[in-house]
Amino acid sequence: MHSTSMQQTTLQQEMAKLQYNQDGLIPAIAQQHDTGEVLMMAWMNASSIKETLATKRVCYWSRSRQKYWRKGEESGQIQTLKEMRFDCDNDTILLIVDQVGPACHTGRKTCFYKLVQNDDVIVDSEPLIDPKELYGK
Amino acid sequence: MHSTSMQQTTLQQEMAKLQYNQDGLIPAIAQQHDTGEVLMMAWMNASSIKETLATKRVCYWSRSRQKYWRKGEESGQIQTLKEMRFDCDNDTILLIVDQVGPACHTGRKTCFYKLVQNDDVIVDSEPLIDPKELYGK
Repeated sequence: MHSTSMQQTTLQQEMAKLQYNQDGLIPAIAQQHDTGEVLMMAWMNASSIKETLATKRVCYWSRSRQKYWRKGEESGQIQTLKEMRFDCDNDTILLIVDQVGPACHTGRKTCFYKLVQNDDVIVDSEPLIDPKELYGK
Repeated sequence: MHSTSMQQTTLQQEMAKLQYNQDGLIPAIAQQHDTGEVLMMAWMNASSIKETLATKRVCYWSRSRQKYWRKGEESGQIQTLKEMRFDCDNDTILLIVDQVGPACHTGRKTCFYKLVQNDDVIVDSEPLIDPKELYGK
């Protein structure tokens, strides 16, 4: 049926529709698969998307270091890909992941630990691991 | 104690740290407060952040229309702000919201309805409402 066939396209077709910014990057949100916690947002390019799908280990593009950022390659805190999703406008990726330990370089589970409370901002989670230990430096 | 006082800053101080892109925008992820579903990602500027905090109704900046985008102003599908969070790098916002009806302009609850499955991409949710009805046009 037509309506059913509309609901499935090839990955190649969908990859071609992705809207990268002027640096060839697209934002990717990582969400922990079982708790639903939003862990972080980072950027991917076409190659890091392909690598992530092939290896099932999340690979971003680091804007600050201008190189591939295989999450956990230094810290050991890898992200295993459970699902990859594209949005309606093809300009954002949602990664459903299994995060080993903290996602955040501060040693916290999630990067979103700064909560606005009226005229203040409070930090409402503690590091699971001392970042010095994470990066062994 | 010093460590405790470090955990609280003013909203004004944190707002001043936010890292906007060359267009003065910062990405904002909207997550449904009770289900944990990631609904959408859009962009905010400093004014739309302030308005959102003041009114508790989420206001984005529409890049395509180059104007404030008070979510739901046309469709009625408003987003009420429950929590606003900033990330460790001050370059992404997480909005914990209560979304009335669909967040997506296609009439779906979430914009992330395209799921990669091996070499295909499938659409795994249906519109809750016909988009023609949403926008009444």
